[in-house]
Amino acid sequence: MPIVTLTRRETFAAAHRLHSDALSPEQNTALFGKCNHTNGHGHNYTLEVTLRGEVNPETGILFNLTELKAILQERVLARVDHRNMNLDIGEFRTLNPTAENMAVVFWGWLKASALGSLLHEVRLWETDKNVASYRGE
Amino acid sequence: MPIVTLTRRETFAAAHRLHSDALSPEQNTALFGKCNHTNGHGHNYTLEVTLRGEVNPETGILFNLTELKAILQERVLARVDHRNMNLDIGEFRTLNPTAENMAVVFWGWLKASALGSLLHEVRLWETDKNVASYRGE
Amino acid sequence: MPIVTLTRRETFAAAHRLHSDALSPEQNTALFGKCNHTNGHGHNYTLEVTLRGEVNPETGILFNLTELKAILQERVLARVDHRNMNLDIGEFRTLNPTAENMAVVFWGWLKASALGSLLHEVRLWETDKNVASYRGE
Amino acid sequence: MPIVTLTRRETFAAAHRLHSDALSPEQNTALFGKCNHTNGHGHNYTLEVTLRGEVNPETGILFNLTELKAILQERVLARVDHRNMNLDIGEFRTLNPTAENMAVVFWGWLKASALGSLLHEVRLWETDKNVASYRGE
Amino acid sequence: MPIVTLTRRETFAAAHRLHSDALSPEQNTALFGKCNHTNGHGHNYTLEVTLRGEVNPETGILFNLTELKAILQERVLARVDHRNMNLDIGEFRTLNPTAENMAVVFWGWLKASALGSLLHEVRLWETDKNVASYRGE
Amino acid sequence: MPIVTLTRRETFAAAHRLHSDALSPEQNTALFGKCNHTNGHGHNYTLEVTLRGEVNPETGILFNLTELKAILQERVLARVDHRNMNLDIGEFRTLNPTAENMAVVFWGWLKASALGSLLHEVRLWETDKNVASYRGE
Repeated sequence: MPIVTLTRRETFAAAHRLHSDALSPEQNTALFGKCNHTNGHGHNYTLEVTLRGEVNPETGILFNLTELKAILQERVLARVDHRNMNLDIGEFRTLNPTAENMAVVFWGWLKASALGSLLHEVRLWETDKNVASYRGE
Repeated sequence: MPIVTLTRRETFAAAHRLHSDALSPEQNTALFGKCNHTNGHGHNYTLEVTLRGEVNPETGILFNLTELKAILQERVLARVDHRNMNLDIGEFRTLNPTAENMAVVFWGWLKASALGSLLHEVRLWETDKNVASYRGE
Repeated sequence: MPIVTLTRRETFAAAHRLHSDALSPEQNTALFGKCNHTNGHGHNYTLEVTLRGEVNPETGILFNLTELKAILQERVLARVDHRNMNLDIGEFRTLNPTAENMAVVFWGWLKASALGSLLHEVRLWETDKNVASYRGE
Repeated sequence: MPIVTLTRRETFAAAHRLHSDALSPEQNTALFGKCNHTNGHGHNYTLEVTLRGEVNPETGILFNLTELKAILQERVLARVDHRNMNLDIGEFRTLNPTAENMAVVFWGWLKASALGSLLHEVRLWETDKNVASYRGE
Repeated sequence: MPIVTLTRRETFAAAHRLHSDALSPEQNTALFGKCNHTNGHGHNYTLEVTLRGEVNPETGILFNLTELKAILQERVLARVDHRNMNLDIGEFRTLNPTAENMAVVFWGWLKASALGSLLHEVRLWETDKNVASYRGE
Repeated sequence: MPIVTLTRRETFAAAHRLHSDALSPEQNTALFGKCNHTNGHGHNYTLEVTLRGEVNPETGILFNLTELKAILQERVLARVDHRNMNLDIGEFRTLNPTAENMAVVFWGWLKASALGSLLHEVRLWETDKNVASYRGE
C-alpha cells in the first residue's frame, strides 16, 4: 500500500517565560532578552502533528481524523490551552519552555498515545515567524 | 485631494488574564471560563491602525509609513510587547484586558501622538478568529 | 461607554451548485459557468459575524465570546457544516446559494437569536478571493 | 432587495520606486528612505475591489464574478502585472506610485468600466502589513 | 549543479463524500461521521506539487514555472475543479476520495506527464488544518 | 540530546528581471515570458532558514533566535531588501535571479556565517504560490 503522511494543525493560547535555572540572572537576561521578563508573555501557538504509514485499503485513510483530533485534544491541548507553561505544566517547572523543548515534550506525550509508531513529526509554531520540529531522534 | 485610508499591521506577544474586580470569583469563572485561569495565558496579538485623510499632493502619501511605524513602536509596542497586560501595564491593573478594552486604551495612547485627527480606527486581533475595533465613538 | 465592534470568524465545509430556477438551462450555463455543473462542487467557507455596541463597564466586553460561539454553532454551523446547501437546507431549495444570498439568509437566522440589535454585519468568504457582506439594509 | 457588498481579491507583482519630482533629492531620501533607492524594488501587491448594490432577485448575485474577474484583468492586471510602475505606466511617470496614489488611479480605471456606480472601494496591499483604500471621496 | 526543490501551490473547489463500499452503512457512519452525509459537502483544496533535481546552469531554473502551471492545469485542475469527486471522477467511483487517496491518484496523473522523474511530492490540503502527502513510496 | 530543527521566516521586498545571458532574446522571451519584461517587476519575498542540531541541555535552545535574526539581517536582508537583484547585487549581474539561484546564493552567504554546520535548508518564496529550497547538495 502507498506510504503517505497525514498532518493535523491545532492552535492553543498559552503564557510562558524563557528562563533557565542553570544560568545566572545576567546570563538569562543576555540570552533571552525580553522573553525573560519576570511576569511572562504569551503566544497563539500552532501545533502540527504528522503521522506516516500505509493507507488502509478498505477505508482509504492512514488514521481517523476524528480520533486524531481527540488524541491531540486529550494529550496536549487539554493540558496547555489557556495555561501558563512555566507555572501550570509539571514538565516545565524545571525545563525551559522553549519551542524546541515544547516540541520534544509534546512528542513524548503523543508517543505514549494510540498514535504510537505512526507518529512522524511534531512541529510547534511560536509565532508565524518561528517554528521548531522534532522527529524523535 | 482624494480622501484615503492607510492601515498598518503590527504584532506583539503578551500574556493576560480576563478577570473583573467588579464580579465575584464565581461570576468571573462563569463569564470568562478558561480565560480566567489564575496564572494567565497569552496571545500573538495583531494590531491594525487605520488613518484617514487627504493625500498630500506633493508626496503622494497620507502619512509617512516610517514615522507611523515609529509611533506605533513608541506608543504601543514598546509598552506591551513581551509583557503581562495585567501585571505590567498600569491601565490594566484595574481594567480587564479584554480585546475591547485594549483597543480603547490603545486608541487613547495613539490619539495623544502626532497621529491626532488622522487616527480613524484601532483594531486588535486576539487570535485569527477574534477581533475588536474602536473608532473613538 | 465606548462603542466597539467585536468580530468572530468561523469556518465550515459545504457543497453547493449555483443554479436559478428563474433562468433557462442555457442562461444558467452562461451566467454561472463551471459553478453550474450538475453534481455541484464545494468550499471551505469562512463566516465573519460582527457585533457593534457599548462595552459593558463591569465586564469590559461587548458580548461573551463563548456565548457568541455557541449561537453561531447552533444557528448556522450545525445547519450547514458538512452539508449540501441546495439539497439539505430548506431556504436554498428554491433560492440560489450564492455568497450574497447565503449572507442574507444567515443574517436572518442570527437576527432572531440573542444577538438581536447588536448584530452589525455578516461576511461570507467563499474562497480566500471572494467575500460577500450584508448589514441588514 | 437586500443591499450587499461583493469583494474580489487579485494579486500582481510589480516594481516601483518612491520618488517625488516636487521634492529635492535630500527630501526624497529623508522621506522615503530605502523606498527611494535608485534602481527600485518591488512587491506582490494584493488588490481588493468591493462592489455595493442590490442583489438581483432572479440570479441571487450582485455582479457576475466571472465578468468582475475579466474587468479587473483587463483594466488593472494586464497593465500592471510584471511591470515597473514608474517606467511602464503612464500615470506614474510624474505621479509617485505610493499605495495611496495607486488606489486612486486604479479607482479611476475601474470607474470607467462596466462596474460604474457599483464600485464601492479599492484597497491595495503593498505588503501584508500596509494597505491603502479609496472610495472616490 | 546544485540540487534544489521547486514547489507550486494551486487551489480548486470540489465536492466529495467519504464513503467506503467495503464497509457497512453503520461502519461508514461510525468512521466518517458528518463526512459521510448522503448529499456530500466540499472544500477549497490546496494542491502543492514539489519537483526536485539539478538547476539548469544556462537558465537558472529547475523547471519552467509556466509549463508547470500548464501541466497542473491540464492533468489535475481541469479534471477536478468545480467537480464532485465521487460522481464526476472515474477513479473515485469506487475509491474513497480521502485526502490520502487523492494525493496518491494525483501523483499518478502527474507522474505520467512531462514532470516524470522530477516529481518529488504531492501534498493536498483539505482545509487549512489537514494535509496529506505522497512521495511515490 | 534531542535533535531538532528551528526555522525562522523573514520577508524582504526586491525587484528583479529573469534573463539569461546564455540565451538569445527570443529564447529569453519564450522561456521567461512576462518575467523577462525589460524594466523588471518585483516581489515580497519570504525567506525561511532552517537550522538542525542538538538542543543545548542548559538553555533548552538550538540557537539563539535574536542572534539568528541578526545574522539573517546582516548576511541577507541588509543586502537585498528594497534593492534590485539584477542591478544592485554583484552575484546576479551575471547569474539569473531565479528563486532557485537566489536560494543557492543565500545558502552560500549564510554558510559562511556563525550558523556553519547547523544550516540545514534555505527556502525562498517568490509569491505565496512558488517556493524553491536548497540544502547544500
